[in-house]
Amino acid sequence: MSVTTPLGFRAAGVTAGLKASGKPDVAVVVNDGPHHHAAAVFTTNRVEAAPVTWSRTVISDGRADAVVLNSGGANACTGAPGFQDTHRTAEHVGEVLGVAAGDVVVCSTGLIGERLPMGLLLPGVDAAVEALSVDGGPAAATAIMTTDSVPKTATAVRDGWAVGGMAKGAGMLAPALATMLVVITTDAVIEGAHVADDLDAVLRSATALTFDRIDSDGCMSTNDTVLLMASGASGATVALADLTDAVTQVCADLARQLIADAEGAHHDIAIEVTGAASEDDALEVARSVARNNLFKCAVFGNDPNWGRVLAAVGTTQALFDPAELDVSMNGVMVCRAGGVGEDRSLVDLTAREVRVVVDLHAGSATATVWTNDLTHDYVHENSAYST
Amino acid sequence: MSVTTPLGFRAAGVTAGLKASGKPDVAVVVNDGPHHHAAAVFTTNRVEAAPVTWSRTVISDGRADAVVLNSGGANACTGAPGFQDTHRTAEHVGEVLGVAAGDVVVCSTGLIGERLPMGLLLPGVDAAVEALSVDGGPAAATAIMTTDSVPKTATAVRDGWAVGGMAKGAGMLAPALATMLVVITTDAVIEGAHVADDLDAVLRSATALTFDRIDSDGCMSTNDTVLLMASGASGATVALADLTDAVTQVCADLARQLIADAEGAHHDIAIEVTGAASEDDALEVARSVARNNLFKCAVFGNDPNWGRVLAAVGTTQALFDPAELDVSMNGVMVCRAGGVGEDRSLVDLTAREVRVVVDLHAGSATATVWTNDLTHDYVHENSAYST
Repeated sequence: MSVTTPLGFRAAGVTAGLKASGKPDVAVVVNDGPHHHAAAVFTTNRVEAAPVTWSRTVISDGRADAVVLNSGGANACTGAPGFQDTHRTAEHVGEVLGVAAGDVVVCSTGLIGERLPMGLLLPGVDAAVEALSVDGGPAAATAIMTTDSVPKTATAVRDGWAVGGMAKGAGMLAPALATMLVVITTDAVIEGAHVADDLDAVLRSATALTFDRIDSDGCMSTNDTVLLMASGASGATVALADLTDAVTQVCADLARQLIADAEGAHHDIAIEVTGAASEDDALEVARSVARNNLFKCAVFGNDPNWGRVLAAVGTTQALFDPAELDVSMNGVMVCRAGGVGEDRSLVDLTAREVRVVVDLHAGSATATVWTNDLTHDYVHENSAYST
Repeated sequence: MSVTTPLGFRAAGVTAGLKASGKPDVAVVVNDGPHHHAAAVFTTNRVEAAPVTWSRTVISDGRADAVVLNSGGANACTGAPGFQDTHRTAEHVGEVLGVAAGDVVVCSTGLIGERLPMGLLLPGVDAAVEALSVDGGPAAATAIMTTDSVPKTATAVRDGWAVGGMAKGAGMLAPALATMLVVITTDAVIEGAHVADDLDAVLRSATALTFDRIDSDGCMSTNDTVLLMASGASGATVALADLTDAVTQVCADLARQLIADAEGAHHDIAIEVTGAASEDDALEVARSVARNNLFKCAVFGNDPNWGRVLAAVGTTQALFDPAELDVSMNGVMVCRAGGVGEDRSLVDLTAREVRVVVDLHAGSATATVWTNDLTHDYVHENSAYST
């Protein structure tokens, strides 16, 4: 049920004709209240798409009544006309729903540098609003897919309240942040004098530990948006710590699904850095390994080439002594004290999931970044995407 | 003739049996003087191979009498025993040549994390010294190849003096610096009170504009070494500016050959950034584009996907306004003022060489970084390298 698992939300996904494939491409999620609290985090790419620019403003007052999402076009690098398209989309959603355009978040995904066909999109919005339903979560999750092979949804059901979510994203997955479109809903009641700030803190805490720690291909998107909407419809007042826990659970579930469905990937790889002097050090090292093309090719070839791990670690500024580095691959310590460890032929990399542990022996901080291998299929999908 | 084009140098390349393929794998280049000036730059990877650690010390007094190079093993991440292997190699070369071990530079290339078979390497050194010849440059260039498909040599012949060079490198090519083994020789006479410092400045000036501006796969090696040796055998005293010009010419020639022979590449791509506020800004932007896997896959598919260029530019801290960015691909301005420019179908990417120009409209500084496309063949070569 995804985003419609919590009470107070309706959703829909329809086919507007934006995609040549004829698959669903427009989704709407509406928060029917009674509360309309919202928070969002966006791409840090300085070349940001028109819908990101628009939605930053929408979210700045902590309120959102609805979000409209389209696949089949990113509306990025489309200049002032592209921004007007986003604005017009929000106004149209506002009119048919009877809410303010300024409370409508807009998300787009697809090819960069093409205008959206508004003559198809706006009728699609009408059809989606017509189809809105408290069972519409799965349809919405399907309509936001691009190269995803499966829709991605997650829920965390608690005593009297719930968190639901949906996500799309299979390429351009890199940290800081998510490089994807994600909508999270909750029917929890959040009380206090600073609900907007509190909700923002909940979302940032969750994304920092989840979407910010997956890096499929090192490429940061222009359109990333993670939106959290709270309806209060459960009537259950929830402590912020409990809400953070549930939202983090849903984000972690979705992030893991994104890695599992990354373009052309044959392996999901957890890079766990231990013994770091700080969490920042651990993250820097994990990301450096996660972005090393040679290492990622080796994993595709089921080759425990730990030398490439060390070569990646060596490019960072983290605190460590090269003569003390340990590296384990799927439980076999192939590198001990910076040199040759156990026989690399003992490592079995045939399973989908691969776990690499790098011990810096410089402290007690840890961090894990998830990535994928670099495969023929990744090259194929991304050399043929727009042609 | 490569490194033996300048007077005062002998070289050789022989088969010691380090490679399973039975191809040549040990090279020696000797500077017979009368001068023995030398300078070198090394990888900035903190996980550096034993021969790099050794050679840093050798070069610190500005003198080198010979360099021994082996393919078939990087001698990296091999701990104290690996360093002893390098030391023993230098001592052996010193003994048979009658020079101090402390004046023998050592370079190794190949798989990381394996000890070198000294029982094969030392007899190989004997054979190489036996074969030393003033015609031995091409044989030496062949013996240092790993996945290179062709040997790489270059010369700059001036009036009465010359510069020669050889290089190996086809993968792990990334800046800061070169990610390869390079030996440059000259018979120029350099006069003055600070010859070692002057020669170091000549080499750093040349590499900063050449090897530091190629980035095939973003992966920095543990073994990079660029060595410059000056024999003074021509008797021609040369101004530092003229020497810098000739060394830069040879380095640029070799750098271009490295890109042209990069693992699995189908396209050589020049990323030229213009209109930058500073040269550092231009370099940061060019490197970001050069390291974007999605863009590199698109070029492999002959797809002028300029949106991926902008997405890469947007991740940098360089000074620019996203609404002013222009991008041309092979002469067609596909992105103008941050939005859609000329029809992308006008771009012909079928030729080997691709030229991307990014105009930041923020100043007058420029820089060009060369890279390659990301191909099925790259994935294949690097998933099967050590297995």
